[in-house]
This record gives sequence, structure tokens and C-alpha cells, in this order.
Amino acid sequence: MPSPDGEFSIIDRFFSQGSANGPWFCKGVGDDCAIIDLGTSRIAVTMDMLAVGTHFLPDADPRDIGYKTLAVNLSDLAAAGAVPRAFFLSIGLPDKDEKWLEAFSSGLRELSEASGCALLGGDTVRTPLQNPSATAHSPAVFSVTALGELPPGMGLTRGGARPGDDIWVSGTLGDAYAALKYRWGHWAAAPAAFKLMRRRMERPEPRNALGRLLLPIATAAIDVSDGFEQDLSHILERSHVKAEIEWDSLPRSEALQSLPLEQQQEAALSGGDDYELVFTAPADRRREIFEAGIRSDTLVTRVGRILAESQQGDGALTVYDGHRRAVVLKSAGFDHFA
Amino acid sequence: MPSPDGEFSIIDRFFSQGSANGPWFCKGVGDDCAIIDLGTSRIAVTMDMLAVGTHFLPDADPRDIGYKTLAVNLSDLAAAGAVPRAFFLSIGLPDKDEKWLEAFSSGLRELSEASGCALLGGDTVRTPLQNPSATAHSPAVFSVTALGELPPGMGLTRGGARPGDDIWVSGTLGDAYAALKYRWGHWAAAPAAFKLMRRRMERPEPRNALGRLLLPIATAAIDVSDGFEQDLSHILERSHVKAEIEWDSLPRSEALQSLPLEQQQEAALSGGDDYELVFTAPADRRREIFEAGIRSDTLVTRVGRILAESQQGDGALTVYDGHRRAVVLKSAGFDHFA
Repeated sequence: MPSPDGEFSIIDRFFSQGSANGPWFCKGVGDDCAIIDLGTSRIAVTMDMLAVGTHFLPDADPRDIGYKTLAVNLSDLAAAGAVPRAFFLSIGLPDKDEKWLEAFSSGLRELSEASGCALLGGDTVRTPLQNPSATAHSPAVFSVTALGELPPGMGLTRGGARPGDDIWVSGTLGDAYAALKYRWGHWAAAPAAFKLMRRRMERPEPRNALGRLLLPIATAAIDVSDGFEQDLSHILERSHVKAEIEWDSLPRSEALQSLPLEQQQEAALSGGDDYELVFTAPADRRREIFEAGIRSDTLVTRVGRILAESQQGDGALTVYDGHRRAVVLKSAGFDHFA
Repeated sequence: MPSPDGEFSIIDRFFSQGSANGPWFCKGVGDDCAIIDLGTSRIAVTMDMLAVGTHFLPDADPRDIGYKTLAVNLSDLAAAGAVPRAFFLSIGLPDKDEKWLEAFSSGLRELSEASGCALLGGDTVRTPLQNPSATAHSPAVFSVTALGELPPGMGLTRGGARPGDDIWVSGTLGDAYAALKYRWGHWAAAPAAFKLMRRRMERPEPRNALGRLLLPIATAAIDVSDGFEQDLSHILERSHVKAEIEWDSLPRSEALQSLPLEQQQEAALSGGDDYELVFTAPADRRREIFEAGIRSDTLVTRVGRILAESQQGDGALTVYDGHRRAVVLKSAGFDHFA
């Protein structure tokens, strides 16, 4: 989960201060990760905050909350091509709840161990209400800072896509969003399809193994947290290019394909919470990318291509259907403060 | 602000997993900072979370909140002897409030620029209430991760104090706590004295310049966030030693000395929020420590000595008054979850 631009802009606008100054060479501020050179070593650092009620359903299983709190940060490291090494965790809770914390920690530890990313410190804070009432309570808040390792001189950012590059996506898009719409009662789905999609919402798989293999191949990368169109647009803006996408080639799960086309498009194009990688690479690297997918046991799909910027300005993204008609959506991503 | 042990123990107990594993050599987990070796470079990393209502008065000036949010993290770096380089900031707010954020950022930027610690990223999140009422709102929550630079092989921790070492304190103790007691109406003070002490509560000065100079001299260090006795006890526990302190030598401001003795003792010994350094060093390094104080423009005062552990167990700390009688306090530090 990078800072959605609508959100990061708050920090960016109020706090930007020529951050790349000082003795640590740094790039990628406002990217998924900051990339810092320390002598001969290079690290990627990302920080995210998540709140129950905003990022998690109020009745979510604390094991899943623990897992996902780390997963979204590892996904940011994956987008930089970094290998997860260490993380720090701060928790703000309205009250001490040992049973809840125990479940939270078991989910978090599961991913920490699987990814080799060690907890090195943190903080816990009680967050009592201002003007408390008997029925209201403040949401649990989690903040993670994750540190990953990069080879000297390397690291994927949003800024390197070039005209002619292919656009790729890992895994499938839209499942988490569709599960949420079903859960809210907005959409209908077969119970089995919902169960599959819900699992994707609760337990996203950070693509660190794939990201690491893409380091010498891809020209730009981002993880899909706010929605495919919105996140790809960040690559386009930073790279000063535009793009076209073929709807028919966008990878969708069987479960998502059981929904009406309009819902599929909304979920796959503007739904967030996928934590898949969107990346670009020259057309002559296709074979290496398929091999990276096989080696990391991750589906990789070519979905479009990067075009030179036009008079329309940077960032223009068009999604075409099978009849070369533009797919137009009602909504595009979300912003906690919008 | 390290994780007060009562708090950190929640994370520690639920999440400890042999954290120093993996390819990054690391020490200091549970210390003020984690210390990480990356090739030939060494960094110190600390993470704190602060909440309005818990760490800040509900009507605190947002400029002071911004300043102090960074200051308490820089203080953790100071306790490790690290030079601040970069930080990440996450903010959880019940609502977007641009005026508030602008004031918050101006205080934060002030210290960021003065310390050379650059903002490299972060996140903002809306934290809506669960079961909202019209009058209640969830507290603003801030999480900072700060990274500092250490020379290879160096870094102060809580674990190196040895019998015979002197115990030192920077600045003065107890002012912030006394200001809070006055503000709550528990204690009386002359307005001028309160004003001075309040300034120390609102704008603590992280002791990074002193900490850096102590690196080759001190044997152990911690910053006073939870109270002198409690924080010194962390050094004693980790170093497996005990200590005696002379009350008369503890540095107190003129303002604090205007209060009754019992209040002075409560504030200086158990009051938190001072962000001064407590450190230990061999007796033959006194001259160098005074020089470090002069070079960093920081008062340094010798307040006691480290003793060998006894059958009483580690961590025993006795404060003696001028008649060699033990000073006994009613309270000792605080714990957000206690």
C-alpha cells in the first residue's frame, strides 16, 4: 500500500522540503519506497498506516489484519524489487485486548517468517477517545515501516517506462474489490466465487520473489493498491508517457469472470487492494519475464503498451475492448480523504 | 520516546521471534533503537507512535505537536549516538484539517531542518470512529520512523554499564512533568516558573550532538522518556548491575526548585517526557565528558555510580538524600496501558 496520491499529497504539500538533500543519496520520494544509498549498500524503505474501518472491515479476523498489515508493506518493497529484511510495527489501540493482539500477532508472524522479514522494534500506544461516549470507540491503527535490501545501483521506481515498452501485470486483478462489494451487499456472487475472492482480499500475496527477478529487466513498477488505472497512471505521470491497455488481456480470476462484465471492469480497472505488480519492460525481454514468472511461481500477463506522450499531456491511459472501443468507468480508485 | 517497557512488552511478548536472525546483523532490539549493519555501513532505526490525548494535551498547539513528534524520535537516535539522517511520517486523522496540518508541518519542518533529518516518505489515513456519536472523535495519531547513521562497529545501547562507572544526566530533569501537573491543576507554581517548565514539555531538545560525542566514551545510554528511575532501571537490567544516585546532585531547573521538595522528587525521579540522556562511563573519562558537554552546549552532571549486582538481583536502584537516607517515591513512571 503506497500512499495513494490523494493522500500522499497532504504530506507532500505540507512537508516537502527538498528531501533528497543531506549526505544520504536518495531517490523515489513519493514512490512506493524511498531508496537510500549507505556507503556500498542500498536499502528500500516504506511506511504505511492502516486503520480498522478504513482498510479493514470492523469484524475482520485479527489474524488476517496482522497478516495484511505486513503484506501491504512487503508489496511496496516488491514494487522496488527489494528483498524484505526487517520491519518495525506501531499499534494504537483504544484498549489493551490480549486475545485480539495474540491473534493479530499470529497472522503477522506467519508472513514475517515466510518472508524472512524480522520484527526489530516498535511501539504500542493507547488511543482513548476525545469526548468519549459509551458506544463509540476509536479504531485500531497500525503503522509499519519495512526495510528491504537492493543490489548497489539497482531499484525499480515509477519513473522509467519508455515508449514501446510492454505493460505487464502479475496475478489477477479485481478480486479483493469484488469481495468487498459482495460483502457490502452491493453485488451478488455465487458463494464459492465469493469465498475465493474474499481470500484474496484477506490474504494478499506480496510479489517479492517476482520483483527481485524483475530488477534487471523491468523499466518501471508499482503495486496495485488503489486500482489498476490509478496506479498505472502514476507510472505514466512519472515517466512522461501514455499507455493503451487491452481489456481482453487483463488477467481475471474465474471467480471474477462469473460476474457481469460491467462489474468485472469496475473491479479490475478501478478496484484497489490487489497488491499485484504492474510493470513495464522492453518488448525484447518477454522471454525473460515469462521465465521470472515461472521461477517465482507467479502468473505474469502482458496487457498493453507504453506510447510516447502526446499533446493531450502525460498520464493519458486508454483501455480498449475487443472492438477497439474505449472502456469508460464511472469511478476510478478511492481516496480516504476524498 | 522508546517503547516504555510496559508497552513494548506487548509487542515483545506477542511478536518476539528471534529477531536478530537473517542476513542483517542487528542488535539493540527492545533498546531505543535497532542497530543494523549493512555491508560497511551501520544505521540506527527507531519507531514511535504518539496520540493526542495520550502524549499531547487535547488543546496543544499543533506546531508543538509537529516539533515533538519528530523530537522524541531524534532523542532515541541520540541515545544510540546516531546522527539523524531521514525520517518517515504517518498520520491518522479523524478528518482532513488543512489548517491544523499546516501548523503541524511548520513545527515539524523547523526541527527537520535544524537537525538535518529529511522527510523521505509516509502515509496519511482517515481514522473514522466505530459506532460514531456526534460529540466523540478519535484522536490524531502520529507514527515516525527515524534513521540515523553510526560509525562502523559503534553505537550506544542499554547493555554496557560496568561496576565503578559514573552515572551522568544531560540537561535538567522533571520540568515537563511538573508543567503537566500544574496544567492539570494538581500542583501550584509561579506563572514564570510554569512558563519555563511548559516550554520544556512542549519543545524538548533531542541531545544528538552530545550523543554523537559520547559514542567513544560512554558505556551505556538511554533517553528519559518514562522517568529517570524507570529509564535508568532499563540500563541496570540490561547491564546486570545496580546503582546508587545522590539526590542532591540531580540537575533541576531553578523553576523546578521553586516547588516543594516532595514534588521535585516526584518530577525529577519518576516524571517522564524529559528527553535527556542518562549515560554511564568509566570514572577516568570525566574530563572528556565535560568537554563533550561544552562542545555540544549541553549541561552534563554526574549523579551517581554503578555497583556490582548483589543477591538482591539486577536492576536495584537506590536514591540517597544528603543524610544517606533512601528517597522513596509513591509512583514510578507511567504506562499507557497500566
